[in-house]
Amino acid sequence: MAHINENFLKLQKNYLFADIAKKVSAFKESHPQANVISLGIGDVTQPLAPAVIEAMHKAVDDMSTKETFHGYGPEEGYLWLREAIAKNDYLARGIQIEPTEVFVNDGAKSDTGNISELIRWDNSMAVTDPIYPVYIDSNVMIGRAGVYEDGHWSNVTYMPCDEANQFVPQIPDHRVDMIYLCYPNNPTGMVISKEELAKWVDYAIKNDAIILYDAAYEAYIQDPNIPHSIYEIEGAKKVAIEFHSYSKTAGFTGVRCGYTVIPKELTAKTADGHRVEVAPFWDRRQCTKFNGTSYISQRAAEAIYTTEGKKQIKQTIAYYMENARIMREGLVELGLTVYGGENAPYLWVKTPNNAPSWKFFEEILYGAQVVCTPGVGFGQAGEGFIRLTSFGNREDCLEAMTRIKKWLKA
Amino acid sequence: MAHINENFLKLQKNYLFADIAKKVSAFKESHPQANVISLGIGDVTQPLAPAVIEAMHKAVDDMSTKETFHGYGPEEGYLWLREAIAKNDYLARGIQIEPTEVFVNDGAKSDTGNISELIRWDNSMAVTDPIYPVYIDSNVMIGRAGVYEDGHWSNVTYMPCDEANQFVPQIPDHRVDMIYLCYPNNPTGMVISKEELAKWVDYAIKNDAIILYDAAYEAYIQDPNIPHSIYEIEGAKKVAIEFHSYSKTAGFTGVRCGYTVIPKELTAKTADGHRVEVAPFWDRRQCTKFNGTSYISQRAAEAIYTTEGKKQIKQTIAYYMENARIMREGLVELGLTVYGGENAPYLWVKTPNNAPSWKFFEEILYGAQVVCTPGVGFGQAGEGFIRLTSFGNREDCLEAMTRIKKWLKA
Repeated sequence: MAHINENFLKLQKNYLFADIAKKVSAFKESHPQANVISLGIGDVTQPLAPAVIEAMHKAVDDMSTKETFHGYGPEEGYLWLREAIAKNDYLARGIQIEPTEVFVNDGAKSDTGNISELIRWDNSMAVTDPIYPVYIDSNVMIGRAGVYEDGHWSNVTYMPCDEANQFVPQIPDHRVDMIYLCYPNNPTGMVISKEELAKWVDYAIKNDAIILYDAAYEAYIQDPNIPHSIYEIEGAKKVAIEFHSYSKTAGFTGVRCGYTVIPKELTAKTADGHRVEVAPFWDRRQCTKFNGTSYISQRAAEAIYTTEGKKQIKQTIAYYMENARIMREGLVELGLTVYGGENAPYLWVKTPNNAPSWKFFEEILYGAQVVCTPGVGFGQAGEGFIRLTSFGNREDCLEAMTRIKKWLKA
Repeated sequence: MAHINENFLKLQKNYLFADIAKKVSAFKESHPQANVISLGIGDVTQPLAPAVIEAMHKAVDDMSTKETFHGYGPEEGYLWLREAIAKNDYLARGIQIEPTEVFVNDGAKSDTGNISELIRWDNSMAVTDPIYPVYIDSNVMIGRAGVYEDGHWSNVTYMPCDEANQFVPQIPDHRVDMIYLCYPNNPTGMVISKEELAKWVDYAIKNDAIILYDAAYEAYIQDPNIPHSIYEIEGAKKVAIEFHSYSKTAGFTGVRCGYTVIPKELTAKTADGHRVEVAPFWDRRQCTKFNGTSYISQRAAEAIYTTEGKKQIKQTIAYYMENARIMREGLVELGLTVYGGENAPYLWVKTPNNAPSWKFFEEILYGAQVVCTPGVGFGQAGEGFIRLTSFGNREDCLEAMTRIKKWLKA
């Protein structure tokens, strides 16, 4: 008989955002008149940049005549897009990345989820806590995470990020093989300095570990001293894979395009001690289990790098960051402790009186009809926090603040 | 130190179409004046249907205003598309498939490659020979295939499809857990009758096996007695997962959209003998490692099911099938033995004088400047055959036949 992969049975049944959706839907059922505002899930709300829309219309037209039709593209993405990425996202910051080191994908979730296939199933891993659930769940599926007990997986090293360490994770005192880092951070909205990031690169070089660096929110960085890429740190190309997404950079959550960088210098070892380049294995994986990203989505991504495109996506990011400022200042004024929201679209808000995350989630839903994300949903160190996103419409954001103010004062 | 997944080291270095590309490029270098016609790789050449173009323009416009913008869609696909699929591809053929049993994807390659994650790594598998390489390679990557010796993987049961059995694979005399079937077949272009397919369903039910049924080419079936879906066979919902692609149905190789059906009745066993539904595990996999298909691509797919869309894609399929007829009749006239091409876009041509596939590949390239795919690239039972595709332009197809005729007569 066919057997199910037992690792899937170990997964916790419910997914964070599905749980939230259920609770919101229960609330709406009993309060049919309520106008619920969601500051919960990290989806964008503003339309695509005009330059992107124009590029997509053109790409659609290309598909309408035999002469300009595009069938299968390269699994790794079209060279014109890989070149635009290498030039604009790296060379412009003084980083040399070859276009062939860039792998275009249909979004960072796919690649951050699939990348661990490349590494031996029994290699160890470390994650910050709180954390984006995909990093762990994808590893549970291939058997790497071990057994789930008391809210932790036995083979995962957790690095708590909390007020005590001001959300700077401590480097493990033992060696691990893979380290997931996400900066600007989801969910805390906190960033990492070059000095702190250099310590991780140093640790990875010394321990022959691989850093899986998720830079999905780098476009939100305002402080010129904060690194946009791990490759700003010397030596990082030897030890780091970097993930980028256009979902938040340019509102592509429905368009589906992003990219992963695997430098040629990055190596891993074989069981018999040989050192091998990692990139060709990823290429083989993609050529076998992926057929490239939609031509239209790739043309959309290319348009982000035009003069007009750059200007337009900056405006949208500024709009969201203004939301973040409004929320941040409003909440601080109410006496709440707020982290993040200065170089990231996320605010990490301490619950009043150390209320548990899910308790405060319900209180704010019932009290102000505002949906947030309970911090504990991202890991145990997230208990006592909620995450708010700045991706809403301005009027919703303002209205939410008015309601929260009224409710907290009552 | 981080270790590479050793299973990747077992993969054969080169991918079939990369090998072909290299040989063609070497030929072009030494024959810069030659006008090479490719009947090799299975990519389409005709533009998208006007109804699809129109739907995509509209979808792009939707993304340009706040009111009609679409961000993250459901990982499983929009319900309107899943409903259109259930209604048009199933109900219209008398098959009851629930929209929630349909999982929209970015192409059949992703899902046929990823599906085996769901099954215990040590479960056994059977494939027809010749075969689409993804079925095997994706299993090599997770360690299921065993060791490669003498052109075969030790843990894979091969079912040769050749002239001796008229390309009807024999059911294994032992039990296997997973069976990959693809009909109309890539590469042979041959089909399976309801009677033969019923034997497989029967085998799977008796042996508690899962059939992975790739129906990517079903739209090319002309004979009304040939099944378009495995679910036309009673009991198949208990044992079969079916993969569909719009790549060949509607020329979506650059658009990226397809779907997988996992009926609720389909179950597998846990190690301790419980029976569990498979679909929720796929759903969990997709929600963790996939973020849904582009909104624009899904709207494109929806347009295929409109009255205009249906008519238009039928015309393109008829165009390709006319190519197939021209090629088939031309080659038969030259005394060649040709299979397929009647209910499928592929022709499976026996090489003259039992020439090895790669030898004939080079001969036809150098003699007629026509690129084919060597049959042995799809497995050992493909030796002595080449695959031709009917996806070219009519004029290329006619020109290729003229050249082959001239060359074979010389």
